[in-house]
Amino acid sequence: MLVIMDNQATEEQCHGVEDAIRALGFEPVSVPGAGRTAVCVTGNNDRVSAPMLERLPGVKQVIHVTQPYKLVSREVRGSSTKVTVGDAVFGGPEPVLVGGPCSVETEARTLAIAHKVKAAGAKVFRAGAYKPRTNPYSFQGLGEEGLHTLALVREETGLPVVTEVIDHDSADLVAEHADILQVGTRNMQNFSLLKRVGRAGKPVLLKRGMSATVEEWLQAAEYLLAEGNEDVILCERGVRTYNRHSRNTLDLNVVPLIRRLSHLPIVVDPSHGVGQRERVRPMARAALACGAQGLLIEVHTDPDTAYSDGSQTITVEEFEAIARDREILGRLEPIG
Amino acid sequence: MLVIMDNQATEEQCHGVEDAIRALGFEPVSVPGAGRTAVCVTGNNDRVSAPMLERLPGVKQVIHVTQPYKLVSREVRGSSTKVTVGDAVFGGPEPVLVGGPCSVETEARTLAIAHKVKAAGAKVFRAGAYKPRTNPYSFQGLGEEGLHTLALVREETGLPVVTEVIDHDSADLVAEHADILQVGTRNMQNFSLLKRVGRAGKPVLLKRGMSATVEEWLQAAEYLLAEGNEDVILCERGVRTYNRHSRNTLDLNVVPLIRRLSHLPIVVDPSHGVGQRERVRPMARAALACGAQGLLIEVHTDPDTAYSDGSQTITVEEFEAIARDREILGRLEPIG
Amino acid sequence: MLVIMDNQATEEQCHGVEDAIRALGFEPVSVPGAGRTAVCVTGNNDRVSAPMLERLPGVKQVIHVTQPYKLVSREVRGSSTKVTVGDAVFGGPEPVLVGGPCSVETEARTLAIAHKVKAAGAKVFRAGAYKPRTNPYSFQGLGEEGLHTLALVREETGLPVVTEVIDHDSADLVAEHADILQVGTRNMQNFSLLKRVGRAGKPVLLKRGMSATVEEWLQAAEYLLAEGNEDVILCERGVRTYNRHSRNTLDLNVVPLIRRLSHLPIVVDPSHGVGQRERVRPMARAALACGAQGLLIEVHTDPDTAYSDGSQTITVEEFEAIARDREILGRLEPIG
Amino acid sequence: MLVIMDNQATEEQCHGVEDAIRALGFEPVSVPGAGRTAVCVTGNNDRVSAPMLERLPGVKQVIHVTQPYKLVSREVRGSSTKVTVGDAVFGGPEPVLVGGPCSVETEARTLAIAHKVKAAGAKVFRAGAYKPRTNPYSFQGLGEEGLHTLALVREETGLPVVTEVIDHDSADLVAEHADILQVGTRNMQNFSLLKRVGRAGKPVLLKRGMSATVEEWLQAAEYLLAEGNEDVILCERGVRTYNRHSRNTLDLNVVPLIRRLSHLPIVVDPSHGVGQRERVRPMARAALACGAQGLLIEVHTDPDTAYSDGSQTITVEEFEAIARDREILGRLEPIG
Repeated sequence: MLVIMDNQATEEQCHGVEDAIRALGFEPVSVPGAGRTAVCVTGNNDRVSAPMLERLPGVKQVIHVTQPYKLVSREVRGSSTKVTVGDAVFGGPEPVLVGGPCSVETEARTLAIAHKVKAAGAKVFRAGAYKPRTNPYSFQGLGEEGLHTLALVREETGLPVVTEVIDHDSADLVAEHADILQVGTRNMQNFSLLKRVGRAGKPVLLKRGMSATVEEWLQAAEYLLAEGNEDVILCERGVRTYNRHSRNTLDLNVVPLIRRLSHLPIVVDPSHGVGQRERVRPMARAALACGAQGLLIEVHTDPDTAYSDGSQTITVEEFEAIARDREILGRLEPIG
Repeated sequence: MLVIMDNQATEEQCHGVEDAIRALGFEPVSVPGAGRTAVCVTGNNDRVSAPMLERLPGVKQVIHVTQPYKLVSREVRGSSTKVTVGDAVFGGPEPVLVGGPCSVETEARTLAIAHKVKAAGAKVFRAGAYKPRTNPYSFQGLGEEGLHTLALVREETGLPVVTEVIDHDSADLVAEHADILQVGTRNMQNFSLLKRVGRAGKPVLLKRGMSATVEEWLQAAEYLLAEGNEDVILCERGVRTYNRHSRNTLDLNVVPLIRRLSHLPIVVDPSHGVGQRERVRPMARAALACGAQGLLIEVHTDPDTAYSDGSQTITVEEFEAIARDREILGRLEPIG
Repeated sequence: MLVIMDNQATEEQCHGVEDAIRALGFEPVSVPGAGRTAVCVTGNNDRVSAPMLERLPGVKQVIHVTQPYKLVSREVRGSSTKVTVGDAVFGGPEPVLVGGPCSVETEARTLAIAHKVKAAGAKVFRAGAYKPRTNPYSFQGLGEEGLHTLALVREETGLPVVTEVIDHDSADLVAEHADILQVGTRNMQNFSLLKRVGRAGKPVLLKRGMSATVEEWLQAAEYLLAEGNEDVILCERGVRTYNRHSRNTLDLNVVPLIRRLSHLPIVVDPSHGVGQRERVRPMARAALACGAQGLLIEVHTDPDTAYSDGSQTITVEEFEAIARDREILGRLEPIG
Repeated sequence: MLVIMDNQATEEQCHGVEDAIRALGFEPVSVPGAGRTAVCVTGNNDRVSAPMLERLPGVKQVIHVTQPYKLVSREVRGSSTKVTVGDAVFGGPEPVLVGGPCSVETEARTLAIAHKVKAAGAKVFRAGAYKPRTNPYSFQGLGEEGLHTLALVREETGLPVVTEVIDHDSADLVAEHADILQVGTRNMQNFSLLKRVGRAGKPVLLKRGMSATVEEWLQAAEYLLAEGNEDVILCERGVRTYNRHSRNTLDLNVVPLIRRLSHLPIVVDPSHGVGQRERVRPMARAALACGAQGLLIEVHTDPDTAYSDGSQTITVEEFEAIARDREILGRLEPIG
């Protein structure tokens, strides 16, 4: 159960609600937000009477929630969330194309790619400055230098940029220089980072964990919303299964499911989802066809010389082709 | 390595090739086919000289194959196989819609559904007469009675029918009454059944095993081709992973992969792939978008009263909508 | 719900019970057995009154069963089943060692291995005459010739033999020559074969499917018991997961679970469970430590020249070492 | 390739080695350690001549390493690492028992449990002060208050304590109050945290990630050793698979494998590995039987009232029984 307080509710009124909940034998969890406060009652709360709470001063609404996640749920908010960044509207009428190299490279190469993906239809530029690497001896990204290159990309092309945060320090720097903070697969359950990013005041792109269930993923998003950040974009990027024919198993079944369970927009990363250049375009099509509200794609002017992930990086020409596919797929009837 | 014999090659000439292979220290495996014979040399055979074998009488061609599967491979046959059944051409320019109830039901209901799916655009009717059931006490299908109903469907509607075989006895009966023999998920590695079905003289639809790799699946198909049956259709229907939000995890990554590795047509079964009615249409779209050459869908005039699998069965109206989706998806540019 | 009839119950009395069940709106499933008959009532049957059925003539007992499997369940039979074959008692006080090569080899080699494993403590000999092979061109076993070699092994050593059946034809032959019929991983849900093997009049060793759940496995065993065969041994042999460091992931968690859920004995096959010779002995120990009632191990006098599976086959010396381990592990306190 | 420098090597000598590596066209990665410095050469380095590097001033040894992990590998250090904490020696002749509640509870209860597990044979006490929780509204641990309770436990019982760190802030506090820092499953690839913990000057217990491969796990440990921390204990706690009969699938196959690949000690957590109280003891036995060098077990004086994870928490009596099992299992012959 979630008790939503009025925007004008005083701190005292919030405490009043919490006391009432305690008096009924339950533990209230305060969920502070930028524009409103909510009080969450967890556990089996059939015994908590909604009308009684609704009559308390400062209470706007009481919502029953049957899922372990609440603020991200359609039960709490029926209308779809739109996350607007520059000219991109995630959750808007047209799926958003996000493109760029795996890692930030030299200024010249990075800018060249950015101009090309913009011309091809991208509304957001992506590139990693901080790379979480399985091996301690692998290239770990250009770090702050990469962030400056990304800032330059935005200045020169007008494209907003998304890049990954890997800890509190990088979160601060990224929040300063980038437009969207990406939380990567390996950090989806780094709850300390989620809390920090939730307070950063910038939209967040939350990738699904390597073997996360839908419930775990939505609860990770709940951490962000519970900190008052409602501009959250979910990103399916494939999960780990017994399969060896692709880097990951792209689980497109979640696209229509997430759209039913949550009001948050969902995008798909087919580059990591298959891990092989040749199959990125077919899977990009499939993602859009089943309702993805955007695509996150690794693109390079010369994929074979990319700093990282070259084997799953497509050319600018293929990215343009995906933009053409999007046109045709846009003619499909809306579902439900 | 695969030694393809001339159509007119004599048995003696085949033995000559086998002896030559043995003389080189390898074991030949004869692969008899309806229209031609091939001799397969397995193991590390760099030492076997192709030109030497090509000079033997009766030999048409020697093909190097680097995969564990040979006859199903694009290395052996570059052009795509078309499987024609009635008006349906699997592997042809238009994806084939296959629809019908999970199980054969009463004559009246089954016929009613068949007329509807035909009107909606289906070119093949599907329904199970023999149902492999996890629980020995579950409804196991109508058996031979069901086959008679399917024969009636074909007679009344002109639609060819596909239905599952579960053992040698049912294979004989199904081959007599149906147009396509389906080998189900649980039997993908029932090699004895594959051999029998490969000799049945009818096209085969081979579902991917519950946790089969692509290599295992193609080798199962190889069993069919090795018996001389080239009319094989592969069917992706989802695999078993840690996910619980869908009955199976539909692995669409295999669609573009299979089209590159094999000349056989591939279709997708989104009904089993998600297991939930609401998500069948989005996943049907995704399957077509990434290159599936057909769809196998559970459809019913009244899904809630279906004999089995009702929760993943869609209405005729939704099936019609998928046919409309197919029109639009048909406008996508062909890939590679 | 399961209605157990008296041993002396007449056919008429059985029909009376079935009619009574139908009158209540449920479908009875007759479960004939060698020594008794049972009638199974499936579906939500709170409305079926046990006392009413118990008063019908010929009824011995009515048992409520909450699982999808019934005859294999501890709810139906509290005491543990003992499967006795020669000197081996599966489910008895001492875990049974089963050893031998993957495939039957020449008479001389097979006999030599059999004498050695017997001396080391094996009570049953194992070797495959019919090999289900992923690749159609791989060695498929010696077939009937192998069965004759196995019969010779029994004659010369006194050891009972277990070997795999792969279809109805091999089931007939194996039932004639062998003491225990093995149903392999790929056939665990070959229900037609299960029914046939259930009627073969010989004990059955049922391997767990590649990605079978415990419920599916027990229901596969239920097929055997429903045919009247109560001498069933379950065998855990590893399941398919994302792991690549071992051929399969040996799921020892099932050992104590199966012992609680079912009265059937459970053995473990560490050879397939890890797929690497060096780790067979540690995992054999682990299996016995957590309650396995036997081990199925691939042993050879010269593993490197084994016809198949050499890399997971241990030497006779290691097999002797496992027999010594068993002594020590036998001193562990019995658990509940 | 790893170039190990002398303890007395100067910074200048290290730079000399790095320059020599660069001159050969490779990128050196310096791996500073408390007692020694190493320079790592990655990539295909057949062209780098070991003898040439060995002749450079300050170089002690050049080691070829074929795995992606180096410092954790047996190739680099043949002898097994012993991690000594209080009376516990991980990697010593006797497996170490670690016991305690899932979460730190009240001082009184926590102390009571600690006295009991010590009496039963535990050499280390475990309890979580910071709990990484899937749901933002779940109990997140007592935090710093919990750490004070743990410090009290150590003072009163003499037992060293292990507890989880979840971010940089908690790492500092835990390093101050606890004896072993645990990195949990969800943070195994939180590389920023690994670097911090690697520099904390305390032994680290590194749990395997939810779906981590052995290579990924060892590379995570490599992050710790690369920071100069050699006191690392690996902990298998089950992985995520399609199975639903246990909370996780305990992958004991890794125990003998890790002992062969790495010199680091490995312990097993059967509590999370099965998630069900009744099966903890059998799996604890299995873990010891296959070579685990310690057990991490959730124990409580009153499991049903535990603050968290009660369903997988065993009683003190069962913990005592596991200590008795350890005695018997200690009589098994050492393997390889």
